[in-house]
Amino acid sequence: MRILENFLDRTGHSKTYFPLLVPEDLFGKESRHLRGFENQVYWVTKAGKRKLSRRLVIRPTSETAMYEMFSLWIRSHTDLPIKIYQTVSVFRYETESTKPLMREREMWPFNEAHTAHATTKEAEEQIKIGIQIYKKLFRKLALPYLLVQMPEWELFPGAINAFEFYTLMPDGKVLETGSVNNLGQAFSRVFDIKFEKADGSHDYAYQTCYGQSERLLASIVAVHGDDHGLVLPTSIAPVHVVIVPILYADASEIVTDYAKSIERTLKKRRFTVTLDLREETPGEKFHYWEKLGVPIRLEIGLKEVDNKTVTMVRRDTLLKQIVSLENLAEEVKVMLKEINQNLWRRATNSLRQRVTLASNLTQAIKQIKEGSAIIQAFWCGDEKCRYQAEEKTNTKTIGFSVNQKEKNNEKCLICNKKARKHICLAKSY
Amino acid sequence: MRILENFLDRTGHSKTYFPLLVPEDLFGKESRHLRGFENQVYWVTKAGKRKLSRRLVIRPTSETAMYEMFSLWIRSHTDLPIKIYQTVSVFRYETESTKPLMREREMWPFNEAHTAHATTKEAEEQIKIGIQIYKKLFRKLALPYLLVQMPEWELFPGAINAFEFYTLMPDGKVLETGSVNNLGQAFSRVFDIKFEKADGSHDYAYQTCYGQSERLLASIVAVHGDDHGLVLPTSIAPVHVVIVPILYADASEIVTDYAKSIERTLKKRRFTVTLDLREETPGEKFHYWEKLGVPIRLEIGLKEVDNKTVTMVRRDTLLKQIVSLENLAEEVKVMLKEINQNLWRRATNSLRQRVTLASNLTQAIKQIKEGSAIIQAFWCGDEKCRYQAEEKTNTKTIGFSVNQKEKNNEKCLICNKKARKHICLAKSY
Repeated sequence: MRILENFLDRTGHSKTYFPLLVPEDLFGKESRHLRGFENQVYWVTKAGKRKLSRRLVIRPTSETAMYEMFSLWIRSHTDLPIKIYQTVSVFRYETESTKPLMREREMWPFNEAHTAHATTKEAEEQIKIGIQIYKKLFRKLALPYLLVQMPEWELFPGAINAFEFYTLMPDGKVLETGSVNNLGQAFSRVFDIKFEKADGSHDYAYQTCYGQSERLLASIVAVHGDDHGLVLPTSIAPVHVVIVPILYADASEIVTDYAKSIERTLKKRRFTVTLDLREETPGEKFHYWEKLGVPIRLEIGLKEVDNKTVTMVRRDTLLKQIVSLENLAEEVKVMLKEINQNLWRRATNSLRQRVTLASNLTQAIKQIKEGSAIIQAFWCGDEKCRYQAEEKTNTKTIGFSVNQKEKNNEKCLICNKKARKHICLAKSY
Repeated sequence: MRILENFLDRTGHSKTYFPLLVPEDLFGKESRHLRGFENQVYWVTKAGKRKLSRRLVIRPTSETAMYEMFSLWIRSHTDLPIKIYQTVSVFRYETESTKPLMREREMWPFNEAHTAHATTKEAEEQIKIGIQIYKKLFRKLALPYLLVQMPEWELFPGAINAFEFYTLMPDGKVLETGSVNNLGQAFSRVFDIKFEKADGSHDYAYQTCYGQSERLLASIVAVHGDDHGLVLPTSIAPVHVVIVPILYADASEIVTDYAKSIERTLKKRRFTVTLDLREETPGEKFHYWEKLGVPIRLEIGLKEVDNKTVTMVRRDTLLKQIVSLENLAEEVKVMLKEINQNLWRRATNSLRQRVTLASNLTQAIKQIKEGSAIIQAFWCGDEKCRYQAEEKTNTKTIGFSVNQKEKNNEKCLICNKKARKHICLAKSY
């Protein structure tokens, strides 16, 4: 989340914090919002030994707390734009079964950015910026994604549009990992976020919001991990390099000293390094650090001391190579970069292989059977055709492809009539 | 808090996150802990439309959630030490009046570090490290402090000792801003945090914890601020430099271009810069940015354009100086450092002036009358003497001086008998 926060800082968003507990009356201000959550919120009814006269909701999201403040902050067009974010936890009393990092009662970390603008055009520009920020974030995490426009039937009432990032899990289901919403004036009308324009007339603010959560972590675990455990992208690995000395009774001191000098060298170059001197076998240590996904392991035994070399093992491929001591810091630097690139390539390839284009239903069904996870197809816009496509392929429409070209001669995969949309069908969590 | 988190990361603490909601039975495990908070916690009793069968407490602190996990994680001496931290919000249903950034129902941000060790000696070493981290943090924020050892009558039952950092507020009261606690085995016995030693015998872990909160912000506001508003130390100022162009109808373009080129130059050097092009008078802009505490203001008019200079105003002293364009980036760098140093000096001097040594009660009373805020004096250890000293000076004993020398010929300020402790008396929040 620090990577994301840095991106947000650099693009003019201010870090904020809004209260966790929202009074019942404020929470109910946007009635559709309330109804959407009323079966899912936690209620605080008691404090100390007293019963509270005004019950408090633990935030399922922060719109109600934030937008109440927006209506106080925003008076004039000169108060706009406002761009803020916070990293917090949010709460949903999930009654279905929960899944670690994917569906939890306390979702943490949850990063939500909220902006308000004087014109709809500016809000649209902000949506592009939000998408750009998330694209950079996914790239940094070596996580390929499918970006789609949300179907209008899933939009919040009154919102203009929304974009969703999906990651593909190894089981073939897609996971919604980040959304960017153009809220239009849906909330500003309810919360009375009104401003005076330069010409003296009044308008409601145009709002956007975009959010990221721990599902990014779920994606990293599932997409990059292997049978040995986690495989962490360099950008988030808390430890870049682990050094495992291979000690022999009669030479343990020489090897330990050599390992310590390497630890010092790498720390000086600002890598995070752990020298594992615990009383366990090298094999146990290898296993332990592989499980934790540390990108690079350095093995050091007597042979390495004698030759002034180090054996370097990369976590993504588990391949070994001998590196001379002289070049070590440079080689580590290059390898960390190479690991991130390789993770990106590998995951991008496996995503591509599982996205297929179908021009009719028979093709779509065949592709699903052959392991395709995401079917892209043309659709006429008729609900009946969509339901049939979803039912026969046992998927849902997760959205429309973005940057669609003009649809001239394209035909609906079901009825063969003129297509209006390019849809993405997939099983989702 | 990012500064503190970086210090903690670099000293081997892992970032964690523990749940906000703690089940009632777990919370009550340490009965003294529960009793300490029972009038102050928020209770979640309902979720969605259901009544919960097991009520949940919103954490007033995280010991109960964390230490339950410690007892599962820790089996052997090789699992130790554990050093973790989290930055969260904690909740107390304060029934006295609340004060912004000082006493709030939701305290945010709250950073708490918790460690567990195999020996009491190691825990003592960790206490020193914790104190060092906080000292560095205060230095970075240009906040001088008084560090004292907490009186034994204020310790958590079973704890070994604790150290408190106090900052001095302008009204002469001290604010508790950070504490470092050697918990001994007080919690590990209750939560059964037991481990096997190398020799096969068992022991309970030795624990420490240290915490920081938004009170740091309260201290920064109160200690550094002046009649114009905030004065932010360079280390936490979100904006280092604001550029205010002074525009004349016939030359506004030249001045704006010059201001923009300066903005670019400084941004390239990694300063955070804001160019204020709003339609307001220069005076209004000066006032606005002074209130927000931005360390450096650059004023740019036609004269500056002609002379290739900039007028630089520092926020801490409001003094102006003319700087040539050529040296600007370097001068900004030097000035940012100088501002932090000056804030530290200024605040240290004003703290020193208000700490006085009293050898008897008459002196102490006189010093308080003359504006002393913290009285240091020798004390025999008799409760009666302490109560009398506190009552007559209208203060409380906030703690004992650390690094006390041998007390040989020192006498109690009340009874004149042999002194055992060097105490600090002050009014506190």
